[in-house]
Amino acid sequence: MRISFIGSGRVATHLAKVLSKQHQIVQIYSRNIAHAEKLAQLVNAEAIVNDQKLVADIDLLIIAVSDQSISQVIQAVGRYLENVLIVHTSGSTNLDVLTQYHAKSGVFYPLQTFSVEHEIAWGNTPLFVEAAFTDDQDILTQLANSLSNRVYQYSSEQRLSLHLAAVFACNFSNYCYDMAKQVVDSKQVDFSLLYPLILETANKVTQNDPRAMQTGPAIRGDLNILNMHEKMLEADEREDLKKIYHMLSQGIQTGQH
Amino acid sequence: MRISFIGSGRVATHLAKVLSKQHQIVQIYSRNIAHAEKLAQLVNAEAIVNDQKLVADIDLLIIAVSDQSISQVIQAVGRYLENVLIVHTSGSTNLDVLTQYHAKSGVFYPLQTFSVEHEIAWGNTPLFVEAAFTDDQDILTQLANSLSNRVYQYSSEQRLSLHLAAVFACNFSNYCYDMAKQVVDSKQVDFSLLYPLILETANKVTQNDPRAMQTGPAIRGDLNILNMHEKMLEADEREDLKKIYHMLSQGIQTGQH
Repeated sequence: MRISFIGSGRVATHLAKVLSKQHQIVQIYSRNIAHAEKLAQLVNAEAIVNDQKLVADIDLLIIAVSDQSISQVIQAVGRYLENVLIVHTSGSTNLDVLTQYHAKSGVFYPLQTFSVEHEIAWGNTPLFVEAAFTDDQDILTQLANSLSNRVYQYSSEQRLSLHLAAVFACNFSNYCYDMAKQVVDSKQVDFSLLYPLILETANKVTQNDPRAMQTGPAIRGDLNILNMHEKMLEADEREDLKKIYHMLSQGIQTGQH
Repeated sequence: MRISFIGSGRVATHLAKVLSKQHQIVQIYSRNIAHAEKLAQLVNAEAIVNDQKLVADIDLLIIAVSDQSISQVIQAVGRYLENVLIVHTSGSTNLDVLTQYHAKSGVFYPLQTFSVEHEIAWGNTPLFVEAAFTDDQDILTQLANSLSNRVYQYSSEQRLSLHLAAVFACNFSNYCYDMAKQVVDSKQVDFSLLYPLILETANKVTQNDPRAMQTGPAIRGDLNILNMHEKMLEADEREDLKKIYHMLSQGIQTGQH
């Protein structure tokens, strides 16, 4: 397939890199020429900063920009790429944000966290595809199958709920690591001591219901420890962490299903 | 070494099991005879429910009970086990909770999360030892070295800060998984789709500062998505999750170091 990208951020970079192994990446558009050129060089494509220079003889255009820019992008490029299948890569953006301006639209959503420094294990990354037309859905499914053995045809609504869950499972758990690091950093204790605990906690949850795996003072109802921990955060003038500690402990104790 | 246990919960069970490979477990005391017998059978020890039946010809007594019971336990058994080294296994309990009733005291704290179903990788579990007397500290260090290659001599204060950090890194991240599961469960979407994301998030943080690895709508300042997610939780009548979503997103956006 001949594939072009709008965007040169983390999702575009990781996706272009892996797709370039089996497909031809034709153009990389970014408003920032340095970013466009950096990624274009990596995947042997042409860098462009003018979206009217996007060529139409491609099979797929992947829009990998921030969620709030998708609508603006499709309005700008959809009209002169009428016969090109155009997809976005967003978990929380409905397909109709594209279809209202461009009929031949779809979604190609990788449920993964993309950081600059870290390689993605594409083989087991769940990919969610959706398209306005059945034959496009087939094309996207085939493309997804070439990257991962976990490909799903999901509606925008299902994808939305997955993305919300991903914020809890990924963004918020990472923030918990961040807060843990702040706690030990302030006492000159090495954060890496917590690595085995972090990995064990994550591994366990792939084998058991997290509710059943919950440990710690909150689920034990150990009020002495809960109070002591809150006092420690108070003494360190970390009212922000104290509030979060209190709210999450309460959630653990009263958690509904 | 000849070792007895007070307690038959998760920490006692995992610790007695691994120690029984190299040492003799003599007695298991628990108020609940069924629990005592279950563990005693596993490690070929005697089960007792009367703490006055604890024999004194042992090298180590490990108190692995809830934090708030440690003081009561040492008051009950310390006096007639005067020459026995007695340790607790708690991250958040000061050594002096033991020493005020029993001179020959110490701490043997494994920084790990113990669940019933899940085997512990002892070899890289950090173990923290502390003792009132130098020779006892040496004995505990040697014992810890026989289990793990990550043994540290930490003060009660350092241990306390580690334990508080562990609540954030382990208990709270697990609760984030739990909340994620609640979100997808309510839409009949399979929680296991999130496993690669959970594992990738945990793995990344062992190689990079979690702050640098933070992804998601909050760190991007994507107010559209943040508002949409909160409205979704509101529509599902999950005010509890909405509050937590809001507070953690704010923390990510304004997080201090």
